[in-house]
Amino acid sequence: MKPEAESPVRSPEPPAASLAAGPICPLPIRQPETIVLGHGSGGKLSDELLETVFWPAFANPMLDRREDSAVLPAAGAAPWAFTTDAFVVTPLFFPGGDLGRLAVHGTVNDLAVSGAEPLYLSAAFILEEGLELADLRRVVASMRQAAAAAGVALVTGDTKVVNRGAGDKIYIATSGLGRLRPGLELGADRLRPGDQILLSGAIAAHGMAILTCREGLQFEAEIASDSAPLHGLVAALAASLAAAQAGPGALRCLRDPTRGGVAASLNEWARRARVGIVIEEAALPVGEAVRGACEILGLDPLHVANEGKLLAAVSPAAAAPALAALRAHPLGAAGVQIGRVVAAHPGRVVMRTAVGGQRIVDTLWGEQLPRIC
Amino acid sequence: MKPEAESPVRSPEPPAASLAAGPICPLPIRQPETIVLGHGSGGKLSDELLETVFWPAFANPMLDRREDSAVLPAAGAAPWAFTTDAFVVTPLFFPGGDLGRLAVHGTVNDLAVSGAEPLYLSAAFILEEGLELADLRRVVASMRQAAAAAGVALVTGDTKVVNRGAGDKIYIATSGLGRLRPGLELGADRLRPGDQILLSGAIAAHGMAILTCREGLQFEAEIASDSAPLHGLVAALAASLAAAQAGPGALRCLRDPTRGGVAASLNEWARRARVGIVIEEAALPVGEAVRGACEILGLDPLHVANEGKLLAAVSPAAAAPALAALRAHPLGAAGVQIGRVVAAHPGRVVMRTAVGGQRIVDTLWGEQLPRIC
Repeated sequence: MKPEAESPVRSPEPPAASLAAGPICPLPIRQPETIVLGHGSGGKLSDELLETVFWPAFANPMLDRREDSAVLPAAGAAPWAFTTDAFVVTPLFFPGGDLGRLAVHGTVNDLAVSGAEPLYLSAAFILEEGLELADLRRVVASMRQAAAAAGVALVTGDTKVVNRGAGDKIYIATSGLGRLRPGLELGADRLRPGDQILLSGAIAAHGMAILTCREGLQFEAEIASDSAPLHGLVAALAASLAAAQAGPGALRCLRDPTRGGVAASLNEWARRARVGIVIEEAALPVGEAVRGACEILGLDPLHVANEGKLLAAVSPAAAAPALAALRAHPLGAAGVQIGRVVAAHPGRVVMRTAVGGQRIVDTLWGEQLPRIC
Repeated sequence: MKPEAESPVRSPEPPAASLAAGPICPLPIRQPETIVLGHGSGGKLSDELLETVFWPAFANPMLDRREDSAVLPAAGAAPWAFTTDAFVVTPLFFPGGDLGRLAVHGTVNDLAVSGAEPLYLSAAFILEEGLELADLRRVVASMRQAAAAAGVALVTGDTKVVNRGAGDKIYIATSGLGRLRPGLELGADRLRPGDQILLSGAIAAHGMAILTCREGLQFEAEIASDSAPLHGLVAALAASLAAAQAGPGALRCLRDPTRGGVAASLNEWARRARVGIVIEEAALPVGEAVRGACEILGLDPLHVANEGKLLAAVSPAAAAPALAALRAHPLGAAGVQIGRVVAAHPGRVVMRTAVGGQRIVDTLWGEQLPRIC
């Protein structure tokens, strides 16, 4: 994979025969009877838990959209987007961020990729007995700073304390409310063959920052998390497409590829829209240090979490202005087109490798890097 | 304390001299440098954490109201109420309820006592590796049932998994959104001398249910949690006062006295409104089994948590119709008037004891019963 790639991706479709949809692993894998770390991975075990436990229990039209935020109707006004996330990252502090910053950015980004302007946050803290108050103050100060920088107000909260050994210092569950930006109609089901897939910059920095910090690994260049709030980038992208008169549906869908990485987000799109997705390995931006660390540790950057990257699917005509808009924003300066939507192999993501072959990019079953967010 | 009391409370003011406001404990107590269980108690240590760490960090007009929910403006429509709570109760299942039921009722009740009609919930689950899936399914089923019964839709969620020994089976952080009912203006600062204080039924059942279950204590009658959704009771109360033309401000403030019990809620009112509060021991409803268990364990029912009780401060003229409205509702059938607001001893709650004496009812410093919600 190359750290930078400039040229838009245009290449013939891969042969569809060998890529027909269906389970990649022909053996049935039995769902475990207890919770394993993989259930929190954002991969297939997470999906199974959602599909067998949570979604059937709470089925309703708002939940059933299965997007990053629920959309709540508001009579006579822009609908609200409502989202929640628990943050359990370890360690609390890592290069490029900390739990507090992550707890703000994660929720702000879920609202951002739903097309909403983030406005209000709530935070529920679960503290472990014995936590140093100095650490709590540091996390809270970072959260305050991140919220102020993102222009969101933390308006309500809660604090619980659990016994020593029944937690891990601090967990934060953040919920967020935002107003949907008018004129955006986003959804994974809106992808169509021919659509182009853009990415705002180099991938896998967050997950590798956590992992190298946790394992005490030293590389020549420090790997820092990319944790950042994406709503400004989304606003710039939407404004630019509106100015280019790309049409109301030109922006199909957005994601911030966190747990499970870019691979999980693309696979979700392919499944939901029943389309194929082809990405070009040569176009995928991966930083030098991140790539080195991934190679040493045997990890695929496509499966590693990001916390400040935007993945966008746009109509063919909107690709050029959208890419220009990304690149004009500080958080999207290294934006690239990484692939496209195809009619072939629906439900499947295929990567054309740098040496001219192709391979299926699947989601993982279990957990590559637990507790990275 | 008597389990039932019928007559409204009217008695002379206690002498104010001995009850002047100021610290009850004259010795300065040093805030610990690490988190202790008492920081989650709802008592003074909780307040100190809020006042020294959380409130200063996130100060904004919505948070600064310091009510159970934030009120969010909505142009041209009823404002939204927004609240969050983490639920860490142990054990997961107890007489009268379980974690899932509690996670719905706790958030529904925070909205209810803010004068809102609860509409939407989010839930963030933190699961411990090794949790039995059967337990998760049972909690989720209970949550589904409680949400359906309360008429709220769970519209968005998240699941994280933490390593064995970094959690305790399941924690749930629930956030809630509701619409403020028109015509209600509630706030702790609205209490005035002469106001009457009503309680919807017998206290301390939830905390004692958890404690007796956790400690394996057996009493003749099982003590069951009072966990229940209070928004129907609040709606009935508000409708009845509107019908009695009690005036828009007749309902001053509502609370569901959870952590810290009735004592913590009344002390918060007295401090916030800078008024005194007098309650009558003879009027306080405590169930037979709960009273027995409290006596055996040396606990004061005033400090023990409830999860389905409503505390209401109303104008003098509204007391009779408000009490009638409570008693006409299944969840308020044992409703009583327990006390009144006075001008004397501002910031302090005083109980006139059954034998004719009086004692100060303070909030606790630390933790009487950890992890009861």
